Amino acid sequence: MKVGFIGLGNMGSRMAGNLIKKGHELLLFNRTKEKAGPLIAQGASILETPAKVAEAAPVILTMLTEPTAVTEVALGKDGFLDHLTIGSLWIDSSTVNPSFSRKMADECRRRYVRFLDAPVAGSKMPAEQAQLTFFVGGDKKDVEFSMPLLEAMGREVFHIGENGMGTSMKMVNNLLLASAMSAFSEAMVLGEGLGLPMETLFDILLKSPVAAPFLALKRPLIVSGDFETQFPLKWMHKDLQLASVTAFECGVATPDMHAVKESFAKAVRSGMGEKDFSAIYQYLKQSQQG
Amino acid sequence: MKVGFIGLGNMGSRMAGNLIKKGHELLLFNRTKEKAGPLIAQGASILETPAKVAEAAPVILTMLTEPTAVTEVALGKDGFLDHLTIGSLWIDSSTVNPSFSRKMADECRRRYVRFLDAPVAGSKMPAEQAQLTFFVGGDKKDVEFSMPLLEAMGREVFHIGENGMGTSMKMVNNLLLASAMSAFSEAMVLGEGLGLPMETLFDILLKSPVAAPFLALKRPLIVSGDFETQFPLKWMHKDLQLASVTAFECGVATPDMHAVKESFAKAVRSGMGEKDFSAIYQYLKQSQQG
Amino acid sequence: MKVGFIGLGNMGSRMAGNLIKKGHELLLFNRTKEKAGPLIAQGASILETPAKVAEAAPVILTMLTEPTAVTEVALGKDGFLDHLTIGSLWIDSSTVNPSFSRKMADECRRRYVRFLDAPVAGSKMPAEQAQLTFFVGGDKKDVEFSMPLLEAMGREVFHIGENGMGTSMKMVNNLLLASAMSAFSEAMVLGEGLGLPMETLFDILLKSPVAAPFLALKRPLIVSGDFETQFPLKWMHKDLQLASVTAFECGVATPDMHAVKESFAKAVRSGMGEKDFSAIYQYLKQSQQG
Amino acid sequence: MKVGFIGLGNMGSRMAGNLIKKGHELLLFNRTKEKAGPLIAQGASILETPAKVAEAAPVILTMLTEPTAVTEVALGKDGFLDHLTIGSLWIDSSTVNPSFSRKMADECRRRYVRFLDAPVAGSKMPAEQAQLTFFVGGDKKDVEFSMPLLEAMGREVFHIGENGMGTSMKMVNNLLLASAMSAFSEAMVLGEGLGLPMETLFDILLKSPVAAPFLALKRPLIVSGDFETQFPLKWMHKDLQLASVTAFECGVATPDMHAVKESFAKAVRSGMGEKDFSAIYQYLKQSQQG
Repeated sequence: MKVGFIGLGNMGSRMAGNLIKKGHELLLFNRTKEKAGPLIAQGASILETPAKVAEAAPVILTMLTEPTAVTEVALGKDGFLDHLTIGSLWIDSSTVNPSFSRKMADECRRRYVRFLDAPVAGSKMPAEQAQLTFFVGGDKKDVEFSMPLLEAMGREVFHIGENGMGTSMKMVNNLLLASAMSAFSEAMVLGEGLGLPMETLFDILLKSPVAAPFLALKRPLIVSGDFETQFPLKWMHKDLQLASVTAFECGVATPDMHAVKESFAKAVRSGMGEKDFSAIYQYLKQSQQG
Repeated sequence: MKVGFIGLGNMGSRMAGNLIKKGHELLLFNRTKEKAGPLIAQGASILETPAKVAEAAPVILTMLTEPTAVTEVALGKDGFLDHLTIGSLWIDSSTVNPSFSRKMADECRRRYVRFLDAPVAGSKMPAEQAQLTFFVGGDKKDVEFSMPLLEAMGREVFHIGENGMGTSMKMVNNLLLASAMSAFSEAMVLGEGLGLPMETLFDILLKSPVAAPFLALKRPLIVSGDFETQFPLKWMHKDLQLASVTAFECGVATPDMHAVKESFAKAVRSGMGEKDFSAIYQYLKQSQQG
Repeated sequence: MKVGFIGLGNMGSRMAGNLIKKGHELLLFNRTKEKAGPLIAQGASILETPAKVAEAAPVILTMLTEPTAVTEVALGKDGFLDHLTIGSLWIDSSTVNPSFSRKMADECRRRYVRFLDAPVAGSKMPAEQAQLTFFVGGDKKDVEFSMPLLEAMGREVFHIGENGMGTSMKMVNNLLLASAMSAFSEAMVLGEGLGLPMETLFDILLKSPVAAPFLALKRPLIVSGDFETQFPLKWMHKDLQLASVTAFECGVATPDMHAVKESFAKAVRSGMGEKDFSAIYQYLKQSQQG
Repeated sequence: MKVGFIGLGNMGSRMAGNLIKKGHELLLFNRTKEKAGPLIAQGASILETPAKVAEAAPVILTMLTEPTAVTEVALGKDGFLDHLTIGSLWIDSSTVNPSFSRKMADECRRRYVRFLDAPVAGSKMPAEQAQLTFFVGGDKKDVEFSMPLLEAMGREVFHIGENGMGTSMKMVNNLLLASAMSAFSEAMVLGEGLGLPMETLFDILLKSPVAAPFLALKRPLIVSGDFETQFPLKWMHKDLQLASVTAFECGVATPDMHAVKESFAKAVRSGMGEKDFSAIYQYLKQSQQG
């Protein structure tokens, strides 16, 4: 299938690579062209503007880090939305908030373009290995149509509901990821304060049903103290901010999440934004010292 | 083995029953004698005071709900501690704080009595089925000596370190249990606020590596809304208070845990103390309504 | 002076009335025309659109409750901004966030229109009595030019700095208002929990240097329990949300403020949004009961 | 009057000095004898044990920093309580929690000794200048009897209620002091993050009814950045911990206070415990930086 692909960051470049491997013809756009090099070597083309991508491909997939970046390529100068053929499909896998996804769905509807919000759970490694999880919001037939593409990049595709519901599910999943990491980190820090060795704490807690399975993957990062980035802490902070704004919009009070969000805010301020988000452990640990 | 057993509540009565099943001779003490009935029917004896239990058994196991209750049976009027033979062993499985366990260890040392802090993870059902997990602090040889008893009641016995370390590990495990439950509940409430059906949220999140495995056991309680008590919310609140005091004692700041603790405080105040602690979901959900 | 006045809510209608009293000629616009009645009786005119107000008056004052409302009258269909004469002045007294004020200042600059952000501290009563406090951001000469207008409506005018600084100061002042109210309420609730009579608490605390002076004005509302609205709780919640977003934008962590914000969120959810914001006391008090 | 005085720290030594100035005969006890030097030079005597103080004086005043210190001099080895003559009076001005005061009142009653809990508001300077505020719990006639002593040390004496109520009022007052300081500090930090100069913020906020009057006294400490100690941050943290335990005991949820408490915990951990408690501003400010 001819697929337009916009956004070749850490995640996007790996996802695009997996689409090529499955035989899809990719038409790329990225602000910094250099990032497209390896994909062009695998047969993809790069075009000058999002608009040109829209004119050349009946399906566009976007993988960007925030709503403003999506707005720019979709609706800004040379944006793709006004250049998509009637009946085309836009799959947005960017991390955005539900109300934004619903707004984009409206923009599409007005132009007789189909829309799926299809954000992913998973970081660099699962992206590389086509092991991502997709949470999809939109019409059933559009989801079915997209299956070959989504399955080229991921292991699981959940059709959650109508437009906005994919993004909603992603937001809930991410919120839980952040708060589980933070809760575990505080428990570790208290344990160490009580004199328990870090290794004992990991050995016991990771066997216990109280610890989320993903924490096992964070053990080497915490033990080594290097926090090699799978998912940057600053993006998690940004996602928590989106969740906070969304909670306000839909009138839900979330006191615990806000305590977590402000811990992430402090971690960002103390210079840990580029590290893996599990470095919230390091922030909490360091804030215990003089 | 002749074993003194003090504390026949929801947990203790089941643990004592499992000891009897394995052929141990139990000498009981409980403030309300009636609770001993079923165990006496199985062959246990009941004595008038903790002191008499100490005089009759070389090993005493206590299973009480808080430090003051332990202090009373151990050091109060007719307490057992001054009546234990030199070289006897006291195993304390009560939920207490680490500094209290260390104080009890000191009291024992002064009397040439051996001491293990051996609190358990697990609630009524695992207690019934001899599936508890023991976190043990104390001398290796005392742990080995106690193995037949602990394995009669539990599935796993972790020797964590010296006296106080069993209690410390239990505290960390419990803290994580409370905060994981609360984080999951807030994520659910936000998800429902976004229009996601409860069933969808459970289906997706329980498959996701971000959710702790124990949460699957709480699904029927949350879906039905009855919160049949496995572990009462008011005891979890009390445990969080012990953790708060302990964090103060060892100089560790835990902002997220305190936000969780105060949510539990409000849930207790709104009358949910006797329900299962997963009713924190219900509290958070209800606090979203007029 | 000919003054365009847009926004005739609780605050705006009173401020407009004071301008008329000082002899200014008012050209009004309001979405619901009926509210203009009493002012028209005092000699003001009402026009059909914001654009027509701009064409008729060299100074426009806006008093709206949030950024989207301001955007609509300024930049929406028949908005005033494109119809102001070069060299005109827009004074925005609405409650908005600093980045919004700076954006409006840019929009004005591009059109050779002068701009002041001039939000107010004070509620209905001070608005009635021309006792408001203005925090003004913008050029000194524009502030001086506006003095007769501002002094017709307020008691104090502080020129804080360049555009955006008036709004910033207002935001900080409001944040402190909310958190001082909340801190006082929690202290009261703890005191009552300890058995201290409400009257004793007020008598002592209001004499103590630890209580902010505005709290004396809230005493009758709390004692009577009716919380007659001076400044609605739901607007305070909205202001805290603006402060939260602003803190994120400028990279400042504010854990205490977020705990306060979520208490206000719960108070809104429990149906107190229309009461005076001092009803946060009532929310905290009620959340202590079954 | 012959007065036994126990506890010659920063506060106690100044209070004792004021009693001597008014002609009272002081019999001192202090763990570190050296601190009594200046008072002995003014005519006071020092005795070997609290017990001896009790035998020599019909009134004992204690000024210690926490419940355990009070327990030791009152009920420990050579404690004073068993040596007081029937009908004597103990005035406890130490910072303790209400349940502790009530326990001490019980201990006194059993010994036919009168008891007042009479903690103070005010720090070093007001102690020096006999400008303290006393919050007193106990019988009216005992308060009247004590007036000459309390007025020798303070400016205001409030009889709050029965035993425990003095301590309760002090706790509420202190809690408000901590949370008002913290709320103001966060507002300042946000203001500075928005580009407002510190001096502008102080000028405006200290004139505004939203700021508690005591904050004016903290301005020079914050501006200079030296935080010369009036009331140490670590003691405020300890007081917040007492308030937290008390809130648990009387079943009151206080989420905002706990957020504040944990900020103080982190400030202590980062080495600020000996500074004035207004250094919470410095902690919040520094936690915004790398």
